[in-house]
Amino acid sequence: MIQASPKDPLANQVIEDLYPSRINETPVVLPRHDPIVYGQASDGPLSPQQLDEFQQNGFLILPAMLSPAQVQACHAELDRLRKNQDLQHRPEAIVEPEGAELRSLFAPHRSEISPLFARVAADRQFAGIAQQILDSEVHIHQSRVNLKPGFAGKEFYWHSDFETWHVEDGMPRMRAVSCSILLTDNFEFNGPLMLVPGSHRRYISCVGQTPENHYKQSLRRQQFGVPDNASLTEMIRQGGIVSATGALGTVVFFDCNTLHGSNGNITPFPRSNLFFVYNSVHNHIVEPFCGCTPRPEFVASRKRCPVLQPCSVLEELAG
Amino acid sequence: MIQASPKDPLANQVIEDLYPSRINETPVVLPRHDPIVYGQASDGPLSPQQLDEFQQNGFLILPAMLSPAQVQACHAELDRLRKNQDLQHRPEAIVEPEGAELRSLFAPHRSEISPLFARVAADRQFAGIAQQILDSEVHIHQSRVNLKPGFAGKEFYWHSDFETWHVEDGMPRMRAVSCSILLTDNFEFNGPLMLVPGSHRRYISCVGQTPENHYKQSLRRQQFGVPDNASLTEMIRQGGIVSATGALGTVVFFDCNTLHGSNGNITPFPRSNLFFVYNSVHNHIVEPFCGCTPRPEFVASRKRCPVLQPCSVLEELAG
Repeated sequence: MIQASPKDPLANQVIEDLYPSRINETPVVLPRHDPIVYGQASDGPLSPQQLDEFQQNGFLILPAMLSPAQVQACHAELDRLRKNQDLQHRPEAIVEPEGAELRSLFAPHRSEISPLFARVAADRQFAGIAQQILDSEVHIHQSRVNLKPGFAGKEFYWHSDFETWHVEDGMPRMRAVSCSILLTDNFEFNGPLMLVPGSHRRYISCVGQTPENHYKQSLRRQQFGVPDNASLTEMIRQGGIVSATGALGTVVFFDCNTLHGSNGNITPFPRSNLFFVYNSVHNHIVEPFCGCTPRPEFVASRKRCPVLQPCSVLEELAG
Repeated sequence: MIQASPKDPLANQVIEDLYPSRINETPVVLPRHDPIVYGQASDGPLSPQQLDEFQQNGFLILPAMLSPAQVQACHAELDRLRKNQDLQHRPEAIVEPEGAELRSLFAPHRSEISPLFARVAADRQFAGIAQQILDSEVHIHQSRVNLKPGFAGKEFYWHSDFETWHVEDGMPRMRAVSCSILLTDNFEFNGPLMLVPGSHRRYISCVGQTPENHYKQSLRRQQFGVPDNASLTEMIRQGGIVSATGALGTVVFFDCNTLHGSNGNITPFPRSNLFFVYNSVHNHIVEPFCGCTPRPEFVASRKRCPVLQPCSVLEELAG
């Protein structure tokens, strides 16, 4: 049980913790209490087959959703951000330990950081699909630009994003969807996103207690909210692993609770992507269920989360 | 220039260093001075097409060379070795830092360690192919059993084995071939061997000077003999990358100078293999070209290197 934040519309309402984690001493696999696809095929843009695939697997890979010209426009914006010295001193920027090379940038959907990516986040092609799956208006819970270099890309261990968003950010229910826009080719050998089909139907309650300010380390290496080997092995035995390989311009939508991770990358081929998390406006963020201080606004949007007004910037970028 | 070891038949003969490395301050790409395929198709067992593929790419992937029954027999032997407590205290055994789980075992081709693997190393199917490619009798330069666990397999960075064998072991010329027998399924996502086609035709002379006893660290992480980014990028741009995926029982032969590496493995699927390096008896090992003390006998065979007498243990194991 947890109290909603006094400043939000659910104030004084007691929110039941349907997805407890980092509380028990042994891991437990719990059922999902929420729908996966909330909307209808008639709401578009996804077809009934695509919605069914998302419902079954917990993700959907959409090849060639962006044209090379659209990817090019995103790359130009990335270059602009990379060269912006002022940006590198902002907390949103994660720079390489050696040198000052930009590695990740949080909150590119905010127009003071990138007017272009703010509009891309709201584009009908992305926000529209999120609205259809979640059957509601959406806001951005988190967004990120990732610039993974070649030769030395580190692995990202298996996790459910929802587990972290629930425990550390106070996202009460599973009604959010992630969208990863591939801005480079993702081969089988340069550490592509790996997903476990069907894993979104159950919830791994992890062990360990979240320390304060865990997010600072967790951007490098996750130590809490890590699924146990036995649960992982069982889910992968049942569902297998799908590598989300694809040419630049491919877009991957995945459910907030789908297990995913990525291996390291020793190849010279870098991987960069644009990542938006769409949350239903009905899935109102409350106090973190771990009882810790909420993560900063640029990692998990709490206060500034305007409802997205779908636009069509991609059509302009198609040149 | 280097003196041959006084005890060997090439004593007092001055061996020219055709493949200098870890000497210059900047990396250089040198031509290969030696043949790739020394033998003829008529010598069997490889076909003209297979020899040509090896010549062109620097490797050959042979699916289903071992039957499930043969793999099973190798697994039984691995289990026996894993449970042998006496073995874990031998220098040949590399155990996990935590616990005493066997991770790698050197020199399984020596009959005092494994009578079975000693015969597998000499089997016509493996030693016979090496003899054909190298057009001579062969001995084992190095052998290893690798038991890579799931969830936490670490990456192995790009390298040419020959560079190390030349500099640290005193292998004068490129007339050796490696054979990796896959004892588990190798998927695209559990860190399979990656090879760079065509990279065997040139030699990357690396920077840095080899410290004494480098081999102890290099089994964990290679710090010297590491190709530079520019040379790697150029070779991969030209040849691409091939992941040697395949079901258990697949065998991969690759030239001593073919660039290879592997990404980490966060999947639950372990990878184990049996690895033999066949060297031509005409490619007599001399003093290390770096001037350091030679690596121990179990890492690089110098004294005890009987010429293999091909046998046919695989036929027995087929049940």
